[in-house]
Amino acid sequence: MTPPGGDTQHGIRRRNLARVLRTVAAQGPVSRPAVAARIGLTRAGVAPLVDELLRAGLLVETGRAATGGRGRPGSELAVSDRGPAGIGAEIGVDHLAVCAVDLRGRVRARVAADAANRHRAPGPVLRQLSGLLAEVTAEIAAEGLRPAGLTVAVPGLVARDATTVVHAPNLGWRAADLAPGLAGVTAPEGGSSAVPLTVENEANLGALAELRLGGEAGRPAPPPDFVHVSAEAGIGAAVVVDGQLLRGARGFAGELGHMPVYPDGPPCDCGGRGCLEQYAGEPAVLRAGGLTPEQAAAHPGPGARIALLARRAADGDTTVVRALHEAGTALGIALAGAVNLLDPQAVVLGGALAGLAPWVLPSLERELTLRTAVTAESGRTGGPAVTVSRLGADGPLLGAAHAALQGVLDDPLHCCTPAHSPRN
Amino acid sequence: MTPPGGDTQHGIRRRNLARVLRTVAAQGPVSRPAVAARIGLTRAGVAPLVDELLRAGLLVETGRAATGGRGRPGSELAVSDRGPAGIGAEIGVDHLAVCAVDLRGRVRARVAADAANRHRAPGPVLRQLSGLLAEVTAEIAAEGLRPAGLTVAVPGLVARDATTVVHAPNLGWRAADLAPGLAGVTAPEGGSSAVPLTVENEANLGALAELRLGGEAGRPAPPPDFVHVSAEAGIGAAVVVDGQLLRGARGFAGELGHMPVYPDGPPCDCGGRGCLEQYAGEPAVLRAGGLTPEQAAAHPGPGARIALLARRAADGDTTVVRALHEAGTALGIALAGAVNLLDPQAVVLGGALAGLAPWVLPSLERELTLRTAVTAESGRTGGPAVTVSRLGADGPLLGAAHAALQGVLDDPLHCCTPAHSPRN
Repeated sequence: MTPPGGDTQHGIRRRNLARVLRTVAAQGPVSRPAVAARIGLTRAGVAPLVDELLRAGLLVETGRAATGGRGRPGSELAVSDRGPAGIGAEIGVDHLAVCAVDLRGRVRARVAADAANRHRAPGPVLRQLSGLLAEVTAEIAAEGLRPAGLTVAVPGLVARDATTVVHAPNLGWRAADLAPGLAGVTAPEGGSSAVPLTVENEANLGALAELRLGGEAGRPAPPPDFVHVSAEAGIGAAVVVDGQLLRGARGFAGELGHMPVYPDGPPCDCGGRGCLEQYAGEPAVLRAGGLTPEQAAAHPGPGARIALLARRAADGDTTVVRALHEAGTALGIALAGAVNLLDPQAVVLGGALAGLAPWVLPSLERELTLRTAVTAESGRTGGPAVTVSRLGADGPLLGAAHAALQGVLDDPLHCCTPAHSPRN
Repeated sequence: MTPPGGDTQHGIRRRNLARVLRTVAAQGPVSRPAVAARIGLTRAGVAPLVDELLRAGLLVETGRAATGGRGRPGSELAVSDRGPAGIGAEIGVDHLAVCAVDLRGRVRARVAADAANRHRAPGPVLRQLSGLLAEVTAEIAAEGLRPAGLTVAVPGLVARDATTVVHAPNLGWRAADLAPGLAGVTAPEGGSSAVPLTVENEANLGALAELRLGGEAGRPAPPPDFVHVSAEAGIGAAVVVDGQLLRGARGFAGELGHMPVYPDGPPCDCGGRGCLEQYAGEPAVLRAGGLTPEQAAAHPGPGARIALLARRAADGDTTVVRALHEAGTALGIALAGAVNLLDPQAVVLGGALAGLAPWVLPSLERELTLRTAVTAESGRTGGPAVTVSRLGADGPLLGAAHAALQGVLDDPLHCCTPAHSPRN
């Protein structure tokens, strides 16, 4: 029942500042009266909040006179394209990437590098990543942007509210705290304090990207309740409930890849048998598709092996088509379990799976429709909507950059005060 | 970000009244300064809130002087054992039950009746239930209690925020709105307006009872994240996240009974194959345990068939023991999927399953430990804690009665003002 920040004057003011900033960020150029109307405050109540955000450099006046409404027209407000930027980083099995987005949601810098990270120790990986981070930080500094936060996407389990990768099987990492290796890399020039660091499972960040960006370019936004499935080397999922990630008690929710599909099936590295990854994980699909480990190894880099599978399937390679059909069946069975348990409005296929959707979707949807009890019992046709992410493999990196801006949006003045004059 | 009721004076006052009432309800007899300390207000801030709750008859002074603290000792405060009562009702496949709890959480009245509800139309069932409700209402009125809300537990899917049973397969109900059949049955004597009616899935209410009562009598309270599994004729589950029920987009979350266990297994009424209910549902277990339909029918009433199974298992009937072992295996496989997806802290076996725990638990825990990836990957031994509900088959009814008091605890003065003088 208690709102964040409590019912203190300070807490209320902080929430109202956040509401103003979010409203302008979401609406684009907008007049002061429109902001007031949207958040249910009076124009007199909104004015000092806007002034504070202008002084902090988070809002700017566009110079264009606001139209409509009563009274003296002021200049329209927009969020600044300078000031804070969210820095997203991605550690993949065979690549690294970093990008920066501004408050307007525009990608302002982006770099990537191939990297053979499988079973490479965290130290060298983080040193290479730090180089990319320094590159991006310098690039955006030249445009008047400074890092407000850094979020790192990893293909593994991350302890809740911590920076420790508990286990990333495809990297071979266990209990790896990324904070020491990344300390200070995004500190503002001449400053000593680093920005807030968050480490997060890549599937969760893919889902956040879907929430934040899925509705752009005229596409309908995803509903507030969905399951986002993604695959790189493993298969992960994120569960979104009421627009929020469901993280689980330890932060390990979403391990769809280890849901039992055929309980007596082949043993899995996790200790179980017949897990989804044994049928729909990348190694399993490559194997079932008749690709030798050598052929697979000849296609390193993000998405290259997936693109190879897609190309072969498009060329009519029946072994690959059958392998993808079977992967879809296994995904459908596992997702039927998830849908019966969670009752989401939609299932979104993201990550590398998005590129294989034409061959995976039919069998996936068939199983899902057949096995989602609610639908069959209530006499409706069709299970929950299954959609394919437009972001695909870009989702985790973009989601990370947007997540890194969250602190600014939640508490605009605290986050954006320069480090040398702390206020609270 | 916006708290319930918003940041208006009215919203803040309402939240503070609710905090005071909840604090006294949770702590038992307690001094005013202790209440103030607990909710972070000054003693002067708490005094008018306490006065209002005393005037409304929700709090009483025990007459015992508060000890400890500084300043003049006042009388200790307690919640009233008169005034509002939560009315819970349960519609089972072969029984009906109604109970009333007061603000102190004590059961003040309880009645039950056998009823052959399988494929009986809603009309006659609700008429019989109304008789029980009238009985309980009269009984508590004599003790100075009046119904503050009615919550009805049903073995089926209930539309979110509605009073419509979308489908209860074991009752044979589809799209049955219970509101017309229950209108006015709990109206205060001489009053015309009925109390708020809520219809809720029984597994959800069993989980709420576990949250509210599981920690009583010296037992540790359940953690805020758990999966509660219950079985009557079907198998249902409730997912609790951060102490709140996860309801799903349509209110249908928790359909554990239709998670695929052996995807090529026997067809299920739901349209799928190899669902959990085909292995661990009551009819499946009775069949696998060698009991004929006639033997089963000779044991009607809540829990009678389960008691029969338990008795035979305790007597060493190997067919029954094997059937329960296999049910536990199937439960373990389905729960492994749920645990991988949700990462709860615990799994609670409730409802009729609680009575079969000695024979179901070993195989259930074996599968769960084997198949919960997080555990195996992180090198820990043991999956999430599996506990057995002390409430057992009583959970849904008690949970319903406690849920019916929720409105009072959320908004004390609005709910408890007599109907003839509405205030808002």
